[in-house]
Amino acid sequence: MEKENGEKWKFQGNKGLNTTSVSVRGVYNMLMDSINNNDNNKTLIRLCRVDPTDNPLFRTTPVAHEAVAAAAQSFNFNCYPPTVGLPDAKRAIANYLSSDLPYQLSPEDVFLTVGGTQAIDIILPVLARPGANILLPRPGYPQYDSRAACCQLEVRYFDLLPQKGWEVDLDSLEAMTDDNTVAMVLINPSNPCGNVFTYQHLEKVAETAKKLGICVISDEVYAHVAFGNNPFVPMGVFSSIVPVITIGSLSKRWLVPGWRTGWIATCDPNKIFQKTGIVRNIISYLEITSDPLTFMQAAVPQILEKTKAEFHLKNLNMMREAADIFDDVCKEIPCLTCPHKPEGAMAAMVEINFSQVKGIIDDVDFCVKLAKEESVILLPGVTVGLKNWLRISLAVDPSDLEEGLSRLKAFSLRHAIS
Amino acid sequence: MEKENGEKWKFQGNKGLNTTSVSVRGVYNMLMDSINNNDNNKTLIRLCRVDPTDNPLFRTTPVAHEAVAAAAQSFNFNCYPPTVGLPDAKRAIANYLSSDLPYQLSPEDVFLTVGGTQAIDIILPVLARPGANILLPRPGYPQYDSRAACCQLEVRYFDLLPQKGWEVDLDSLEAMTDDNTVAMVLINPSNPCGNVFTYQHLEKVAETAKKLGICVISDEVYAHVAFGNNPFVPMGVFSSIVPVITIGSLSKRWLVPGWRTGWIATCDPNKIFQKTGIVRNIISYLEITSDPLTFMQAAVPQILEKTKAEFHLKNLNMMREAADIFDDVCKEIPCLTCPHKPEGAMAAMVEINFSQVKGIIDDVDFCVKLAKEESVILLPGVTVGLKNWLRISLAVDPSDLEEGLSRLKAFSLRHAIS
Repeated sequence: MEKENGEKWKFQGNKGLNTTSVSVRGVYNMLMDSINNNDNNKTLIRLCRVDPTDNPLFRTTPVAHEAVAAAAQSFNFNCYPPTVGLPDAKRAIANYLSSDLPYQLSPEDVFLTVGGTQAIDIILPVLARPGANILLPRPGYPQYDSRAACCQLEVRYFDLLPQKGWEVDLDSLEAMTDDNTVAMVLINPSNPCGNVFTYQHLEKVAETAKKLGICVISDEVYAHVAFGNNPFVPMGVFSSIVPVITIGSLSKRWLVPGWRTGWIATCDPNKIFQKTGIVRNIISYLEITSDPLTFMQAAVPQILEKTKAEFHLKNLNMMREAADIFDDVCKEIPCLTCPHKPEGAMAAMVEINFSQVKGIIDDVDFCVKLAKEESVILLPGVTVGLKNWLRISLAVDPSDLEEGLSRLKAFSLRHAIS
Repeated sequence: MEKENGEKWKFQGNKGLNTTSVSVRGVYNMLMDSINNNDNNKTLIRLCRVDPTDNPLFRTTPVAHEAVAAAAQSFNFNCYPPTVGLPDAKRAIANYLSSDLPYQLSPEDVFLTVGGTQAIDIILPVLARPGANILLPRPGYPQYDSRAACCQLEVRYFDLLPQKGWEVDLDSLEAMTDDNTVAMVLINPSNPCGNVFTYQHLEKVAETAKKLGICVISDEVYAHVAFGNNPFVPMGVFSSIVPVITIGSLSKRWLVPGWRTGWIATCDPNKIFQKTGIVRNIISYLEITSDPLTFMQAAVPQILEKTKAEFHLKNLNMMREAADIFDDVCKEIPCLTCPHKPEGAMAAMVEINFSQVKGIIDDVDFCVKLAKEESVILLPGVTVGLKNWLRISLAVDPSDLEEGLSRLKAFSLRHAIS
């Protein structure tokens, strides 16, 4: 780009960062443009991003609001927080997680982060080294891909098997591991698949990881959001087999993604993360990155300890009803197949049967046309690693979900092979 | 590290991240260990980190607390924020900054960040490309160094000249610039030097940057914290000469570093950042990184618009008094020289005259021994790029400042060459 004297400015945008076309937000913004330019006069229905606050019935508990407002009004939490987090918050999270584990986490095992996103942003560079690779699930959560690209960590994908309730294809996982593989990621309850892994399968995953000499990053931002038959089992249960890095957050279970409060917990009774320098590196990285708000951290103990069971039960019931509605409508749409009724997290994956539709070339095309014709936004599967599938968020107002699915059905029938 | 069967775990901490020895927090933690192991029974005095809340007289305005508590209690701000920030917050920041500029910023020029730290974390990778280099001030703020290392951006240092009131050595800056230089960083009011750059000098900096074809990153997290003769002038005043990326935050002026609310503003009436893809890349990067809390963003307009002038004046008066105390004591310590009485930001730099002390080998040794003997913590200059200098924070309780400086004096005299 030239200055007015004909010389050039030397700076330009880093082209490596142009991730808009594949990031969830980038695709969302692109689809919103389709909506804004259509003329069908239909109200916008977003079944795209998984933001539980899109459902007005999903309100966090007053316990949480009061805890945060009280901490925000106190003059005691305006300071920088300690590098690793406020001691009381670390202790409360350690206790909260330990109630589901066979051993007690210590506060030193917990590190506060700016939501689950920053937990990912921290743990990937900590594990990176020249030539290293990491195993990610396909489909998965694209933050892992973009972050791995930023820290030169090679990505290899193992499949989640739709026919087997989205279980890990352990044979293929094993086959792609080599001496430079450092870790695998599992998201449980699963975003985007909506399944909840069984105790038995998680144990197999742990045994496999141990055999391969890799650690497990267990992304449990949807911990306890399990409303089907499989109870949520944290991977940390198997941390005496393999060391586990657990990622958690208030965002989903407390319905407050905008509060950006999450954590990393090293579940590792054998202290392997200490001996391999991982713990030290997490702390080093925390020293050079942004902290979660001090007063939000101060509110964490009260939020974790005082929230009533009824609050969680009510939300699970709503998710279960949404899954039922979704499953019923899906069965009525020939060109879409949901291989596994959602039982956890807040979204589901459906496959497009191209033998049943005409005039649509792929999942992105499907979503663009759906946005244009019906003002309904879904996420194309390609953004989560599965081309020609669709991710549908269930965490929306039930009437919006019904209306959105009904328009999806109308759209699908209109484009069906006659 | 071996598993019990003799095979190895394949993961290990990324040694490239072991920045503890040079990060401000790492050195702070190291000095705290010296304190914890000493037996002098003196109370701890921290003149090390610049956290204004270390001074109990520095309390933010009730206006700010009320705005945040109200936003936190509302159910309207629990959702994810938009990628680039809440529109109302962007508008308020654009207006706030424009009141000091010759032209009006638009809300689209403003991007919300998790404090000034995340603004740095975003803008450096946006400007990085293979082979690119960036010019940083020496002394400076180490977040720039650690972040540049993370995104393979080569760093070159230009000197700030203590004899010239810490002005930029423009000749050396020009000499080190080449075709791969993309930007320079200036921190104004200056951390760690405590000076405030004049209008005339900033104009020269802008003209030089224009001639060199590089943009200016103006770190103004201490904007308006100017209590000497030079008024604060934002670099954006010269943005018709050279495009300026302004970094700002509530942390310092509102005395709330724990609130982690900052911004990037592109001051660029000629739209050069749009034409060179910088704006697009900032948005791309924001799409894959953690957001600032939604309700904190919602509180920004009220904080910026309703804070009374008296609040700021009172704080400036306190800083001016601290600078006076500091300057008076410094003059009584033969082994320390402060080349420029602090007039802005919240810290100052003093040089150690090794011809006047014995038994101390460098600035780190000075700080370790001072911590051990006097329980006073200062920051060794090497952490901000200037070996054998010391950074002293002035943002502390006045009685602590006096006591700390008095112990520093006693220590210096005790170690003086007799």
